[in-house]
Amino acid sequence: MTTSLSGFPELLPSQRFVEQEVIDRLRHTFELHGFAPLESRSVETLDTLLSKGEIDKEVYVLRRLQADADEGDVGLGLHYDLTVPFARYVLENAGRLEFPFRRYQIQKVWRGERPQTGRYREFVQADIDVVDKDGLAFHHDAEIARVMAEALVSLDFVPPLRLQVNNRKLLQGFFEGIGASDVPAVLRTVDRLDKVPAEVVGQLLIDDAGLNAEQAAMCLRLADIRAGDPDELNRRVHELGVANPTFQAGVDELIAVLRGCTSLASDRFSVEADLRIARGLDYYTGTVFETRMTGFESLGSICSGGRYDSLASDGTATYPGVGISLGVTRLLMPLFQQGLLTASRSVPSVVLVALPTEDARAECSKIADVLRGRGIAAEVAPSADKYGKQIRYADRRGIPFVWFPQNEGARDQVRDIRSGEQVDAESSTWTPPADDLHPQVVIQKVSE
Amino acid sequence: MTTSLSGFPELLPSQRFVEQEVIDRLRHTFELHGFAPLESRSVETLDTLLSKGEIDKEVYVLRRLQADADEGDVGLGLHYDLTVPFARYVLENAGRLEFPFRRYQIQKVWRGERPQTGRYREFVQADIDVVDKDGLAFHHDAEIARVMAEALVSLDFVPPLRLQVNNRKLLQGFFEGIGASDVPAVLRTVDRLDKVPAEVVGQLLIDDAGLNAEQAAMCLRLADIRAGDPDELNRRVHELGVANPTFQAGVDELIAVLRGCTSLASDRFSVEADLRIARGLDYYTGTVFETRMTGFESLGSICSGGRYDSLASDGTATYPGVGISLGVTRLLMPLFQQGLLTASRSVPSVVLVALPTEDARAECSKIADVLRGRGIAAEVAPSADKYGKQIRYADRRGIPFVWFPQNEGARDQVRDIRSGEQVDAESSTWTPPADDLHPQVVIQKVSE
Repeated sequence: MTTSLSGFPELLPSQRFVEQEVIDRLRHTFELHGFAPLESRSVETLDTLLSKGEIDKEVYVLRRLQADADEGDVGLGLHYDLTVPFARYVLENAGRLEFPFRRYQIQKVWRGERPQTGRYREFVQADIDVVDKDGLAFHHDAEIARVMAEALVSLDFVPPLRLQVNNRKLLQGFFEGIGASDVPAVLRTVDRLDKVPAEVVGQLLIDDAGLNAEQAAMCLRLADIRAGDPDELNRRVHELGVANPTFQAGVDELIAVLRGCTSLASDRFSVEADLRIARGLDYYTGTVFETRMTGFESLGSICSGGRYDSLASDGTATYPGVGISLGVTRLLMPLFQQGLLTASRSVPSVVLVALPTEDARAECSKIADVLRGRGIAAEVAPSADKYGKQIRYADRRGIPFVWFPQNEGARDQVRDIRSGEQVDAESSTWTPPADDLHPQVVIQKVSE
Repeated sequence: MTTSLSGFPELLPSQRFVEQEVIDRLRHTFELHGFAPLESRSVETLDTLLSKGEIDKEVYVLRRLQADADEGDVGLGLHYDLTVPFARYVLENAGRLEFPFRRYQIQKVWRGERPQTGRYREFVQADIDVVDKDGLAFHHDAEIARVMAEALVSLDFVPPLRLQVNNRKLLQGFFEGIGASDVPAVLRTVDRLDKVPAEVVGQLLIDDAGLNAEQAAMCLRLADIRAGDPDELNRRVHELGVANPTFQAGVDELIAVLRGCTSLASDRFSVEADLRIARGLDYYTGTVFETRMTGFESLGSICSGGRYDSLASDGTATYPGVGISLGVTRLLMPLFQQGLLTASRSVPSVVLVALPTEDARAECSKIADVLRGRGIAAEVAPSADKYGKQIRYADRRGIPFVWFPQNEGARDQVRDIRSGEQVDAESSTWTPPADDLHPQVVIQKVSE
């Protein structure tokens, strides 16, 4: 990994293999669940980008280098997420899409913010969303959680992940139920619990959000609830003794999302209700998601989202949706930085065809072509050096096999340069072990 | 396809399938030949972007929207190709790469130019390059042509393509051989043959490039040579009677590149030497490539490149390279615009599991999960409408099969909604025809 430009990380080829493998596995899971592929353009009008207000500081605006003096900016900026562009795309193409519309989108996004640990100016996000016209059935909330959970489980080389779910209706109904007069203020204050100690938040709830001491204590008790088991969750929220229909609807939805994911739980992946999750962005209206990676909690959430009932609207119709966004770069960069992940080799080649003399290049290329025709990545040695040097060429790249062409009459041989084992072989029939066919993601143990 | 923002085309999901299939096939071919995956950041410093000089008008410069008054531009621009970033990457990472270094890179690039037919402000390029340290063996020129040719041949749903090759040494040696005093001026003038009639170019060669009438005529005779057969090429260039060692070296290289590709020739793909190809950019030093698509010649070249012996240099070492770049967007957009290409469906789903009642959702999800576990993309109907409406849901998206769950004791059934054929089936064993497993690229005949 290199960062010659702060906030714009670049990968070495072996790391790019890992990133590509992550993207391939995500895509595979998303497509198995019927999510259609989509890309939006990288730029949006500033009107679109700023309509959501919150992160206008972070937008990169475009200007033509040789713009006329009176031309100025072109009124476009790079997108900072994939949700706002998707909402714009749905509105623009509503007449050509079938609803409910399910899509995944894996693209780079940009934010002009000050780089810091876990924050990048250019990074890859992988989003899934379902939107419908006018109304979206709740079961899609559970589906979105389930699909992303399956996708995360497929990344079996990253540290254990914990998907945390909450529900805005649950929070709002609870705050209403205890008699809060300024529910948004309570929500904003509770949302600070991941940065500010509970006793400070308790005082802020009294000073800024207009609660009394008992109400503030109730909010902190609610925020303290974490439960992976739906029945336990149900029991603990009702122990608080608040009766409110919105609260109850939120509890029911949260339990349904939890139930949808419990079968995926393992020592590498868990799902839990965490009632302090609120998500700062104000367009969420129901389910909200965050995800933590064990040992990397300081990164914050690497996979977040939720239900948004009114993000996209064209005046005559609204397009409610639910979605979740995985920060691919945010997930992988710390693992690369700590040397925890790499690929088994730096090139796709399974076989290096050795070159006895430069005159034999055409013959050697034919051998490589036969292997390629059978799906085995192969390259011919760049020069007819001594075989020892050609073997080192393969070794330095991690290419596992070197092929030695023989003269007419003798059979070719192939050597596994890791074991030194060398056997007779024909390019039309020889097959490498399945694990060698493509570069593999390798988890590296880092000694303390 | 939609273009609500001029120059920034966006695809519908079925079109994105086609683009994704193109990218997958390119990647497959590139990897079979041992090219490593690479991505560079989307931005470069303006110094890097402008070091090649030619297209500074087309760069999009970035500015933080909320920049401090004295901050101005951040000194970064979006890359306009993948060659300049690659050269910068190689210099920065030379100590961590193994040379010769072979990589492919499939990314978006941006140009702030005036949109016109076949030109975009945001588009996807697919590049392959080989670079070595200090010296790069010539056989890589033939290899690069061969690999891209194989990749283009794999795109069996696009119109016939013609790869055109020339060689800068051939041109330079020829111009020297006929006694031209200002070879770059001759080259620049000859390069205008695709836009300006031959007689005008002939006069310009006399007026601007200092040739006499006989020399100018010789240049036009050379530029007139097109030959797919290496022997014919050899015969025709030598009929011109120019003897010059650089010329001869260029002829030999050109013939070698041609020979490397001839076995790929078919009615859908051809390779030829075209001696009027010069490539405007001045960093090419030997082989140059262009590619035309039959019926879309007005687009110009959709796949171009060549040998560059001195693009990357850090003062102590140079990194000569050879590469070629396919304009994926440029290739596909006209085909989408004319309605020639689409996908067999707009979603990945092979099967829609019908929903008898909302209470059966969990059972139906299990059926879908069993299918997915066997690699068969499936989704459950969004609501328990009448079956006729659920079948229309599948039909509108092109989902070929609808699965009907039965109560305990009876066997499930699956219907091919294209033929109406309905058979008993079990989710653990039923398999769709191979052609239905993934969306297929469909060539649409457009009636005149």
